[in-house]
Amino acid sequence: MAAPVRSVLPVVLLGCGGVGRHLLRHIVSCRPLHANQGVAIRVLGVADSSSLLVADDLHSNGFDDALLADLCAAKSAGSPLSSLLARGQCQLFNNTEARRKVIDTASVLGKTTGLVLVDCSATYDTVGMLKDAVDCGCCVVLANKKPLTCAYEDFEKLVSNFRRIRFESTVGASLPVIASVTRIIASGDPVSRIVGSLSGTLGYVMSELEDGKKFSEVVKTAKSLGYTEPDPRDDLSGMDVARKALILARLLGQQISMENINVESLYPSELGPDAMSTKDFLESGLVQLDKSIEERVKAASLKGNVLRYVCKIESTGCQVGLEELPKNSALGRLRGSDNVVEIYSRCYESAPLVIQGAGAGNDTTAAGVLADILDLQDLFHKTA
Amino acid sequence: MAAPVRSVLPVVLLGCGGVGRHLLRHIVSCRPLHANQGVAIRVLGVADSSSLLVADDLHSNGFDDALLADLCAAKSAGSPLSSLLARGQCQLFNNTEARRKVIDTASVLGKTTGLVLVDCSATYDTVGMLKDAVDCGCCVVLANKKPLTCAYEDFEKLVSNFRRIRFESTVGASLPVIASVTRIIASGDPVSRIVGSLSGTLGYVMSELEDGKKFSEVVKTAKSLGYTEPDPRDDLSGMDVARKALILARLLGQQISMENINVESLYPSELGPDAMSTKDFLESGLVQLDKSIEERVKAASLKGNVLRYVCKIESTGCQVGLEELPKNSALGRLRGSDNVVEIYSRCYESAPLVIQGAGAGNDTTAAGVLADILDLQDLFHKTA
Repeated sequence: MAAPVRSVLPVVLLGCGGVGRHLLRHIVSCRPLHANQGVAIRVLGVADSSSLLVADDLHSNGFDDALLADLCAAKSAGSPLSSLLARGQCQLFNNTEARRKVIDTASVLGKTTGLVLVDCSATYDTVGMLKDAVDCGCCVVLANKKPLTCAYEDFEKLVSNFRRIRFESTVGASLPVIASVTRIIASGDPVSRIVGSLSGTLGYVMSELEDGKKFSEVVKTAKSLGYTEPDPRDDLSGMDVARKALILARLLGQQISMENINVESLYPSELGPDAMSTKDFLESGLVQLDKSIEERVKAASLKGNVLRYVCKIESTGCQVGLEELPKNSALGRLRGSDNVVEIYSRCYESAPLVIQGAGAGNDTTAAGVLADILDLQDLFHKTA
Repeated sequence: MAAPVRSVLPVVLLGCGGVGRHLLRHIVSCRPLHANQGVAIRVLGVADSSSLLVADDLHSNGFDDALLADLCAAKSAGSPLSSLLARGQCQLFNNTEARRKVIDTASVLGKTTGLVLVDCSATYDTVGMLKDAVDCGCCVVLANKKPLTCAYEDFEKLVSNFRRIRFESTVGASLPVIASVTRIIASGDPVSRIVGSLSGTLGYVMSELEDGKKFSEVVKTAKSLGYTEPDPRDDLSGMDVARKALILARLLGQQISMENINVESLYPSELGPDAMSTKDFLESGLVQLDKSIEERVKAASLKGNVLRYVCKIESTGCQVGLEELPKNSALGRLRGSDNVVEIYSRCYESAPLVIQGAGAGNDTTAAGVLADILDLQDLFHKTA
């Protein structure tokens, strides 16, 4: 028998690509577990990049599980959200109306039962909507890094009520990095330094180089294994790692922006997307990088070190790029696509707090988002 | 300028030895930080093993910071809590009245503003009080392992409203082990296995043995460094690790008790506390263990393995004892007194989620307790 419902969490999901779809599946499959804990998640709306599907009655239980399953199936098959209209229960809004409708929903529910706006998209376009939702008293859960890495004022606005936002899955997927840093700071233990390998792709590439393989070959293998973006330069530029570094730096209280982060790209601008196509880069560009990377790997090796693509956040600055590290350090030992983060503070001064594990994957990232949603449940407590 | 107060957390602390004293100091030193976040912690009562000091007015701001500082100083100097009565603001209750007074306080505050009962003692005596407090709707934060490791019914009662209890510091001090396991379970990702080295003392001893040192000498060095309990057999028995294992197993839903855990003691009963004094054990008992441990270390080494004192929680059972592990595993690489925990689940299947760092120390343990208290703040939200 399920426990009495203590918390009802109404959710609107922005982005139903890989992570969003996995989230919806997790929500459905966890219903019995959550019911046992007295928690109910109601999906009241789902948006993709072109439209928004909203439940007819915002005070209802939201989309039923059959509709959510069909929605996941439709998105997997590349069908538009409009294909679900025939199912009833919902209305469709196009892109321009969608933002207004989300804010309407937020303001209807924000001050009464509350609403959790969950962003699993990968766009900057949601930031306005998220800020409006915060103004309405809503909660926000992000897997999308971009709203936290644009203007500092936007970040400040989003975290202005820090208990109403969660963003664990923006750094290292579901690894408890944000939660741990938040706990440490809350206990008055100042975090002095965070060092990490926060790209599974670059982690894999760097550890493979140790075996004497050529950079170009390792990158191509990584691509064939599905570890890289379609254009591997999206990983090799370091920008994704830089976004994670910026989120961590801002979490530590640094009022900085992307331009304050020293980012080392693994390719020069002559080989960049403005200069050549992905195909040309893979066929002729990549191989031009082999020699210089090989020299750096060898130079490191002579000193007993290995090369890692590292993100380093200190009070003096924030850097993202290649570093020589002792083979026997937490980062030096890293193999494959695992992420690792070292956190230094008063309590973790001589030896850091180390968190290591899978830092990517739709399933894992969605699990982190779901844990974040549930972590908000005390704000949605039924007092009756 | 401080933010408006959003959450007021009234606290009664049981146990003001090392961890409790550090907690009070952290609470005082964090006041400006917490005020910025709109949080206020009010210490309404502090108990040691013989008496309880309670604020005159339960609806006041509690003990002022000067009184808390004096209280820490008095306890450091070995003075009784009664020495603080002259300061005013408070009343003293002796042991037999104390429990009733805590429950009175809990029931006065439990249903209105709420109360957090924080147990930093190391006794089984608090469990009745904690259960009564839970009945009054209070929250509970534990550094004390014992209330969670006695009868299963007691555990069940204490965690019956899982959002109102926190016990991070019972396992690995402030390391985010309980929080991580809780997050993983909440996201519907079933945890299949937890493996860890959860005793800084035994971790130190085992890693030192690799260098060919004698067991008896390593234990004596550990004692002189303050790593062991006054009687090192309290560590060598494995009972402290077994308690942590039991807490983790119960967290995973296993309805087991201490007698279901397979615990390997590092000394035989002939050398136990019933058979000889601590002095005799250190002078003549300990050395009798050298040969057999040396043989096990050597046998492991021949296979490229090292010996570790490991706690292992699986669906098939729960074990605490010596294990041979690959030198190059997370546990095998462990040096010094760090703790390490590996968590296996669907999301962390091929490679576990690994958490490593200092797992002991009053400062660190108290920081974990404080983070737990703050994690309850949404239940103490001022709705006005």
